[in-house]
Amino acid sequence: MSLGDPAGIGPEIAAKAWAARDAHRLPPFFVVGDCRSLEAVWNGPIERIADPAEAAALFPRALPLMQVEDAGAIVPGEPNLAGARCALDSLEYAVGLARSGAAAGVVTGPVAKAQLYDIGFSHPGQTEFIAERCGVAAENVAMMLAGPTLRTVPVTIHVALADVPALLTTELIVARARVTERGLQRDFGIAAPRLAIAGLNPHAGENGAIGREELEVVMPAVAQLRAEGMDIEGPLAADTMFHPRARARYDAALCLYHDQALIPIKTLHFDEGVNLTLGLPIVRAAPDHGTAFGLAGRDRADPGAFVAAIGLAGHCAEHRARAA
Amino acid sequence: MSLGDPAGIGPEIAAKAWAARDAHRLPPFFVVGDCRSLEAVWNGPIERIADPAEAAALFPRALPLMQVEDAGAIVPGEPNLAGARCALDSLEYAVGLARSGAAAGVVTGPVAKAQLYDIGFSHPGQTEFIAERCGVAAENVAMMLAGPTLRTVPVTIHVALADVPALLTTELIVARARVTERGLQRDFGIAAPRLAIAGLNPHAGENGAIGREELEVVMPAVAQLRAEGMDIEGPLAADTMFHPRARARYDAALCLYHDQALIPIKTLHFDEGVNLTLGLPIVRAAPDHGTAFGLAGRDRADPGAFVAAIGLAGHCAEHRARAA
Repeated sequence: MSLGDPAGIGPEIAAKAWAARDAHRLPPFFVVGDCRSLEAVWNGPIERIADPAEAAALFPRALPLMQVEDAGAIVPGEPNLAGARCALDSLEYAVGLARSGAAAGVVTGPVAKAQLYDIGFSHPGQTEFIAERCGVAAENVAMMLAGPTLRTVPVTIHVALADVPALLTTELIVARARVTERGLQRDFGIAAPRLAIAGLNPHAGENGAIGREELEVVMPAVAQLRAEGMDIEGPLAADTMFHPRARARYDAALCLYHDQALIPIKTLHFDEGVNLTLGLPIVRAAPDHGTAFGLAGRDRADPGAFVAAIGLAGHCAEHRARAA
Repeated sequence: MSLGDPAGIGPEIAAKAWAARDAHRLPPFFVVGDCRSLEAVWNGPIERIADPAEAAALFPRALPLMQVEDAGAIVPGEPNLAGARCALDSLEYAVGLARSGAAAGVVTGPVAKAQLYDIGFSHPGQTEFIAERCGVAAENVAMMLAGPTLRTVPVTIHVALADVPALLTTELIVARARVTERGLQRDFGIAAPRLAIAGLNPHAGENGAIGREELEVVMPAVAQLRAEGMDIEGPLAADTMFHPRARARYDAALCLYHDQALIPIKTLHFDEGVNLTLGLPIVRAAPDHGTAFGLAGRDRADPGAFVAAIGLAGHCAEHRARAA
């Protein structure tokens, strides 16, 4: 687990997750970051390690830590450039350990993008950085939001809503669907995944009466994927595909834009949503929230999403190990 | 209650709602439509009435019915033009009774728009027809989706997603917000309603980084409404405003497009969502589903949404009567 920005809530939720390891039956994990960022917000036991192999034995009695170059003075809630460097070091080191197989996967703590950009970070986010380090083109990864009763994958992500219709292509939908199907097989052990895809317009366009993207873009993608043998249903009316009976019919819902994927998952699973990156050679999960600088250092951060991310990363790693 | 299309599930769910009147403590209601559409799917007691004043006394032992011109032969699941005429007669008669004060409000059963258009109906839907009959401009009504823990109001409704950004104006948002505030006061008895409004873009645009509609259209509307004294918060990130703690902070959420409003309500309250028309001189509610011709005549329709609509219409009518 990379601790993320040392002045954010990453260190606190990592410590709280370790403290709750038994209640949640978490797999052994270690953190990569600056020890002082933990000590600033927590007085529990920390053990420095030099090799990931030491972590499992220490884990029952202390939070194992791999120290990166220190972040200088740390004031929770007050991000600075040294902290951004520390966050980037932690991320890079943690990803390297997962790549090498020394760690079974990586859970990334929240970072402050503005500060990362100021130190020369040139990727839109941690995900794109990790994809590059893994040698995977950003188009070939997908972001999955996973909760206990729903998994969604947005086809487009951090773009203005007005730009979504033009960005949606049959090729992009096909690519995201393939990554999603493969991810469900590899990371969730679902042999024959069932996908559903949302329409873009109200009532999925009512056969062209309220927008034509379903007819011109989504349906050709579904036809192509079905011809390849994929079990995919849609385009479905987005408003009627997330109630309990509808959710039971698919393993993941492909959504066409950010809020279409994020509204249902966060409405249902706000404190336990996990952001999983599909399409990578490594398991990568992240809690679905930010640095929350306003909360940092006040012992009020909820570790729920981080606990869920560690748990899910562990399950995914097990599925991959079993298949290997 | 207008029965809607006689070949749809309207008659069946009306009958089932009456049968469940005690369990749900429903207020007395009567149906307006063709008796044969009920008899085709139900063998419970029906009593014809000539005046709404007779309904309350009969209600405990039979479903009171005001007969409109009959619909000809009725085959559940097979809509036709005579049925569309019957549905329109029922709607018109029911609205007239509510307008005159003979009924405390109207709950409308689902109609088949294609058949209505074929008989010359020129409104986009029942709501616009009712608004016209009530002498209210369509711009001055708003559709509220109401469930037990969430109420949402879409600013734009049945338009293609690509058209939403251009249709959103500060004036339209202000108008919808005013109707919503007034509706919460008049129909829900909330003296000082708290509104929230969603942003259009991911993360509500991140201060202009992902789309500028929040800055240019939504924030000016919020500023104007606050200057008028309205308690309105936003624009909020749409994905984080519908979880339980977030919902507790407002009485209704103003959403900018159909699925932004409908996804959360139907995810949470699929079988109990009520479509309430705000801004009318009468109480008007509708179950949030269609004619479901495929289900008609098979005794499988769930009356949950209809029961919820009758219950809510009753509560709204009480609030209005108390204030009058």
